[in-house]
Amino acid sequence: MPSRGSHDRETVYRILDAGFLASVGFCKDGQPFVIPTLYGRKGDKLYLHGSAASRLLCELEAGLPVCVCVTLVDGLVLSRSAFHHSMNYRSVVAFGTAHSIEEPVSKIEALRIISEHLVPGRWKEVRGPSEQELRATKVLEFPIDEASAKVRTGPPLEDASDYGLPVWAGVLPLAMRCAAPIPDEQLADGIELPDYVRLHDLRLNGATKG
Amino acid sequence: MPSRGSHDRETVYRILDAGFLASVGFCKDGQPFVIPTLYGRKGDKLYLHGSAASRLLCELEAGLPVCVCVTLVDGLVLSRSAFHHSMNYRSVVAFGTAHSIEEPVSKIEALRIISEHLVPGRWKEVRGPSEQELRATKVLEFPIDEASAKVRTGPPLEDASDYGLPVWAGVLPLAMRCAAPIPDEQLADGIELPDYVRLHDLRLNGATKG
Repeated sequence: MPSRGSHDRETVYRILDAGFLASVGFCKDGQPFVIPTLYGRKGDKLYLHGSAASRLLCELEAGLPVCVCVTLVDGLVLSRSAFHHSMNYRSVVAFGTAHSIEEPVSKIEALRIISEHLVPGRWKEVRGPSEQELRATKVLEFPIDEASAKVRTGPPLEDASDYGLPVWAGVLPLAMRCAAPIPDEQLADGIELPDYVRLHDLRLNGATKG
Repeated sequence: MPSRGSHDRETVYRILDAGFLASVGFCKDGQPFVIPTLYGRKGDKLYLHGSAASRLLCELEAGLPVCVCVTLVDGLVLSRSAFHHSMNYRSVVAFGTAHSIEEPVSKIEALRIISEHLVPGRWKEVRGPSEQELRATKVLEFPIDEASAKVRTGPPLEDASDYGLPVWAGVLPLAMRCAAPIPDEQLADGIELPDYVRLHDLRLNGATKG
């Protein structure tokens, strides 16, 4: 549905910032691979990270064309006919080529961007990466060459003759939500749940009201 | 992490049945494409559908190798060090080749499988597809040639020397949840919310307790 599509940069960024999980696709000898991974964004760049031994990251680092897809599900659209059932969602499909970040300061900054994308406020509290950990981590920068967003919102669209059918119709809103945080069993006494964790659900909830 | 992986068929099926959104990847002239789409499963086959004009489905129907990725996010794992942060998740990556279902009875049955996968109980209530609607819909069958599952559960794994750090650590559970259903504004009087919609959240909630 072309009417759902957009190449508007702000729309693309808003969707990328509301999500945190990407499906990353690449081809090897004509065979497609799609791997889920976390990400962060700054400007027109996405940052991915993982084990230095990761197959995905080693393939991508070789300069293959990459497609990154982020999808946020906002609801199931239940129409009176099978045909008009749909999904409310926001998605971005982005194309480009990734490269590895080797320089330590830039590498740590990219890791900070990913961390702050996932749980804002966390980075400054935790123990930062050691030299050995940094070597064991691969960080890729993915400049977005081209991207498109698709968004569907609202109620079912029906054939006029279907409105009279005695069938419930409407939208079943869906969103990623947090449950109560589970403290680690070895948590030292007196360490309270930080506000940035407590507020995470609100952030998710706000972010998914697109 | 090889220890998280599994080729066990029941594990793969359980994850596919708990999800409903797939990221479908294919290659064209070395360029990867990843597109989000709903799906259903029966046995070792996935079913995808969309507009007969859909670029994705037309490409896939041509017999290209396909990679289907389904990921369920179960939580963010907050460790005391930046390095050991992780995600609890269940994912499946499946490989195969799709083909179009043309025969009307099989095509309708595949649509029923997708519908029942998304909202069990819905199919028998709604107006079924007309001949014209059926022609406007493409339905693909994707036999799974090979698949692997990955699952991470549980608390953060820490370096022994990090347990004493004064940093909150634990798991922030995440799950796809329903909010209150939004009835269509043109809903006829006296049509009540069906039980299968009311129970959808319980199903999702149960399904994400992996």
